[in-house]
Amino acid sequence: MGIDTQHEHIVFMRDDCHVCISEGFEALTRVNVSFGDKTIVANLNVCTNGLLAHGQVGLSNSAVKSLRVIDGDELVITHLEPINSLSHVRSKIYGNRLTAEQLDAIMGDIVKGNYSNVHLSAFIAGCAGENLSLDEIIALTRSMINHGKRLKWPGDIIVDKHCVGGLPGNRTTPIVVALAAAAGLTMPKTSSRAITSPAGTADTMEVMAPVELSMEQIQSVVKQTGACIAWGGTAQLSPADDILIRVEKALDIDSEGQMIASVLSKKAAAGSTHVVIDIPVGPTAKVRSQADADRLKELFEKVGEAVGLKVKVVVTDGTQPVGVGIGPALEATDVLSVLKDEPKAPKDLRERSLAIAGELFELSGKSKSGAGYKTAAAMLSSGYAYNKFIEICKAQGGFTEPQKAKYNEVITSQVAGTVVDIDNRRLAKLAKLAGAPTAQKAGMKFHAPIGTKVKKGQPLFTLYAEAQGELTYALTYLRSENGKDIVRITG
Amino acid sequence: MGIDTQHEHIVFMRDDCHVCISEGFEALTRVNVSFGDKTIVANLNVCTNGLLAHGQVGLSNSAVKSLRVIDGDELVITHLEPINSLSHVRSKIYGNRLTAEQLDAIMGDIVKGNYSNVHLSAFIAGCAGENLSLDEIIALTRSMINHGKRLKWPGDIIVDKHCVGGLPGNRTTPIVVALAAAAGLTMPKTSSRAITSPAGTADTMEVMAPVELSMEQIQSVVKQTGACIAWGGTAQLSPADDILIRVEKALDIDSEGQMIASVLSKKAAAGSTHVVIDIPVGPTAKVRSQADADRLKELFEKVGEAVGLKVKVVVTDGTQPVGVGIGPALEATDVLSVLKDEPKAPKDLRERSLAIAGELFELSGKSKSGAGYKTAAAMLSSGYAYNKFIEICKAQGGFTEPQKAKYNEVITSQVAGTVVDIDNRRLAKLAKLAGAPTAQKAGMKFHAPIGTKVKKGQPLFTLYAEAQGELTYALTYLRSENGKDIVRITG
Repeated sequence: MGIDTQHEHIVFMRDDCHVCISEGFEALTRVNVSFGDKTIVANLNVCTNGLLAHGQVGLSNSAVKSLRVIDGDELVITHLEPINSLSHVRSKIYGNRLTAEQLDAIMGDIVKGNYSNVHLSAFIAGCAGENLSLDEIIALTRSMINHGKRLKWPGDIIVDKHCVGGLPGNRTTPIVVALAAAAGLTMPKTSSRAITSPAGTADTMEVMAPVELSMEQIQSVVKQTGACIAWGGTAQLSPADDILIRVEKALDIDSEGQMIASVLSKKAAAGSTHVVIDIPVGPTAKVRSQADADRLKELFEKVGEAVGLKVKVVVTDGTQPVGVGIGPALEATDVLSVLKDEPKAPKDLRERSLAIAGELFELSGKSKSGAGYKTAAAMLSSGYAYNKFIEICKAQGGFTEPQKAKYNEVITSQVAGTVVDIDNRRLAKLAKLAGAPTAQKAGMKFHAPIGTKVKKGQPLFTLYAEAQGELTYALTYLRSENGKDIVRITG
Repeated sequence: MGIDTQHEHIVFMRDDCHVCISEGFEALTRVNVSFGDKTIVANLNVCTNGLLAHGQVGLSNSAVKSLRVIDGDELVITHLEPINSLSHVRSKIYGNRLTAEQLDAIMGDIVKGNYSNVHLSAFIAGCAGENLSLDEIIALTRSMINHGKRLKWPGDIIVDKHCVGGLPGNRTTPIVVALAAAAGLTMPKTSSRAITSPAGTADTMEVMAPVELSMEQIQSVVKQTGACIAWGGTAQLSPADDILIRVEKALDIDSEGQMIASVLSKKAAAGSTHVVIDIPVGPTAKVRSQADADRLKELFEKVGEAVGLKVKVVVTDGTQPVGVGIGPALEATDVLSVLKDEPKAPKDLRERSLAIAGELFELSGKSKSGAGYKTAAAMLSSGYAYNKFIEICKAQGGFTEPQKAKYNEVITSQVAGTVVDIDNRRLAKLAKLAGAPTAQKAGMKFHAPIGTKVKKGQPLFTLYAEAQGELTYALTYLRSENGKDIVRITG
């Protein structure tokens, strides 16, 4: 029917059909839909007018894709057998601990698509906060790894990095990958596109080189250059995580157990052995206190050990954007400036990248303890890292310089004073309203980090857009009640 | 668009529209949809083909109804402000207790339709099992009452009854109402239709008299006869409960707090003062152990007291169906047989009805302690109860005798032995597959209660259907793996 309901399968049926009648038109009824040897579980939506003819059923895009059907194919709709693992979800909700087998049964059903959003939401709620024990997190991580593909790479040491929670402009990954590969480490990096942020690493990288590579292409790029920076969407690594994470975002629920399992299952499935995890801490960051960060650090390292990963956690400043650009092309410009070791390159982005690469060098044994940062800095100043980056881009299909957006608007301070606080979440929203990441060149340059002394009329940030309409849209938001105090200045 | 998604509002928009682009095509995105002074919150589904023209949006039936729009009306779609009460839901999920104000804010947003199914599911999970304290249950009940209409009746004593959890054929309500009204009590009974069962009280009553009465009609019937047995769907009593209960069913989660708040909020909103609650206990009933029933009994009575209701809980046998008929017309036949005090009337249905009415007489002060049952039995044998029932039916619009279904099939025992166990849930499913409750005359007569000694070939039950197709459908289920041992017989 050309209706996109994301991962949730929907089947549309007439109100006078047999299945609808015997199920009593119930909300949230779920049915099996089969075509050939493929069966999916779908939510039933009932059509009460002439959208469907007698004997016709409609499918959401996700269902069409899963069943690989075309118009006119004959489908079999049957009643759904009870999903046994839901009893474990209920058990968790009632406060019990789950065994590894029970968690594995739940992950199996989630990957098969047997859970509706309502079921997923209940499972997530049951696991929320600190409701999962260390053993449960380990079992969950293992199960997520096993219910998906697992990549293999040449060599024993495969390094990776991950940043927990969004900080606008915190685009260290392409730099760290170039530093690591320049130093001879293997770093096959797969990254995500933005889900709620103005740019994901894959979006930023795509400005400079193709990122939608097949697994064969990724293998070939890594063999040639020692690294890659590709989109991970096709890899089918920890698919249970992909499904859970969408509902978690809708609920805005923090679940430390789920988060740890999510991150580490993806890393282990991607074949990594040594992983540095960056946890930015700040009032509008994902992790808001040092105590939370310390707790996460301990769990990350323990769960990592249990699933065979060497994990090092670094806690960083999460109070404000990193670099100058926010949005794919604007962040790419920052990345290239750092890699070229230009004097005007954003210092904070440079320092973060060197620090993370340094930790990776020490963790993997490439540098002695305490010598990692220096090695990383040498890779930058020698030009090795920049050359390696261009080599990676070429191997991925060719390097392109980032372009500037056609429309922009400078936002200036209404008052004189000092910048004391930045709302990263609303700043990110503004960049999205201007078109990022779909419009690659859209977003903003941020000119006023915390502590900046500003005069009245001094630029705070510049909005960039590819269409006048989108620029207007962002400005409307900025001038509404929501746009107040995104950058807080006190006299 | 003629798509029935039950209470969840869905708005369908083109993938190239502005709202879709700025929200990044995210799953489960929610938006405000306004028409005139009415605004609803709806889930966004994205249409990727030509189902919608440029500038067109589609709405689910529920959204059309709430906004009262017709084809061609102009709608305003805006971004959704954060729903503040979701932070309380998260707090509950993290294991904290909620204040009365916090629970009230959640109920307010639920009634306004601001919560998606995913949010509702998370709230239900947070309140599941024994996660609500007595104070929280009381606050929840009060809030549910306040977020809806409240009925008023003449007189100080208004009696009611409620049965927790389904037992097929347990249709005591019409009999108890007739007994109570015959004895001079006021019992304005509003009942539900079946949701997952083969018949609700409203479905059964509708076989004999109209039940879809306006509030004015209900008031008039009660004034004339002292009672009514009407469908409660139009009353807007405790609408938060109506919304929550649908998602609870989809999750099959037991939440004693939610259940108590659900039942007592409906009763208090309906203007009742004295309520008898029947809790059937059995292995396939809703409440499965005496200990659970005892705990519920205590909570029901305490919460009732806090919201100004006198509540008496009776714990009854929930191991097998009550009466002979299952399905609207077949249950109506049993009800009439008991009211006529016929010798062939099902004894179990008669005894349960008299016991509940007796408790109601004692609770309300109509009878002295210990004398209630006797008073009830006198109402039956004197013919007062039957006459009162016919009087109520006439006041509601006229009495009709139940009719028999056209198709039937007798199901006999494959073995000789004794009936030891009955799966009430699958028995109910069978009656539904035969067409109940939509097909009023469909369902079954059950001939083999626990303890019955049966010969090979002796009838266990008779299936009734209004169409051959539905009879076949039920028989197919019965002969599948699922149909085994619905009535378990051992040699």
